[in-house]
Amino acid sequence: MGISPLIDRLIEAFQILPGVGPKGAQRMVLHLLQHNRDGGNTLSEVLALTMEAIGYCERCRSFSEEPVCRNCLDQRRDDASLCVLESPADILAIEQAGGFRGRYFVLHGHLSPIDGIGPEMLGMDRLLARVREESPEEVILATNLTVEGEATAHYVYDLLKTHVRTISRIAHGVPLGGELEYTDGGTIVHAMQGRRDFS
Amino acid sequence: MGISPLIDRLIEAFQILPGVGPKGAQRMVLHLLQHNRDGGNTLSEVLALTMEAIGYCERCRSFSEEPVCRNCLDQRRDDASLCVLESPADILAIEQAGGFRGRYFVLHGHLSPIDGIGPEMLGMDRLLARVREESPEEVILATNLTVEGEATAHYVYDLLKTHVRTISRIAHGVPLGGELEYTDGGTIVHAMQGRRDFS
Repeated sequence: MGISPLIDRLIEAFQILPGVGPKGAQRMVLHLLQHNRDGGNTLSEVLALTMEAIGYCERCRSFSEEPVCRNCLDQRRDDASLCVLESPADILAIEQAGGFRGRYFVLHGHLSPIDGIGPEMLGMDRLLARVREESPEEVILATNLTVEGEATAHYVYDLLKTHVRTISRIAHGVPLGGELEYTDGGTIVHAMQGRRDFS
Repeated sequence: MGISPLIDRLIEAFQILPGVGPKGAQRMVLHLLQHNRDGGNTLSEVLALTMEAIGYCERCRSFSEEPVCRNCLDQRRDDASLCVLESPADILAIEQAGGFRGRYFVLHGHLSPIDGIGPEMLGMDRLLARVREESPEEVILATNLTVEGEATAHYVYDLLKTHVRTISRIAHGVPLGGELEYTDGGTIVHAMQGRRDFS
């Protein structure tokens, strides 16, 4: 028997979060009850607001509470390059790494005929329309290096090749600090194929 | 720059949870937005309800949404033994281990003069009143094996010794599956001191 029916319900509710099991959820609930009820209330409010208000940006399909997201509205960003990604999490990864100042377009997935996910579900029509309108100089394909991600990259390439001068794919190879000795074969193959002039 | 101001706020709000850092919070938020908004709404509702409705049981001081908690109301439990604990989490640990069918009393902490935590803040008066009313045959001291936990156990012992026939302390020693070779010295000292007739 647990402590109380309501606490049991909350412990269960927390387990929908990725990486949170029964023990972790129990620890979270007791922590909030013992030490931070205000924080728990704030979390509840912001969570409800977010689930309600967050939709998709009209231009890049990323998450946004406004019709157009702040990345798309930011005048300081460079319209000349457009990076195509599988998910909004990938935007965060690129932004946190720094260095890219262009625009984004989020597919929200990859082509997967077996799951019934075709080009229309990935917003390909909107991607094409945006490229026609804005005429970026370069489209960077940053889908994941999986069978589906590669197929999606090829599809986007075929879709846009007559409209954009340069279509590139992010590099795949040995990661920073990685040692060749401990790198998997697939990565090494990509690193060799993607080699560049050393000058 | 993140994805949206509201999402940034939620990522921050999730970091009040124990064991959740910026990356984990970000993963939680994106997971809910992408895959489980209904679950997010449910979590928000149950969380608000819990923060609002959970108080303390009048009898055992554990968390409860009712004046008296379900453990204290459960007629099948044994009034003869009363287990004194530092936190409601300890009740869950004992319940999940199974085997104990008595009652509980939660101190919500331990004596710590340096932090200004004295007997009155730990509900010692209510513990004494309860013992006088119910006259349990045994009180089990299950405070933690720390300096403060030990001091608290001694305090409770002095408080109750004239009112209860048996006051016991949970055993401390080598844990199940533990090997003597890899057990710390303090634990071994307790295991030796706490040795019992082998028969």
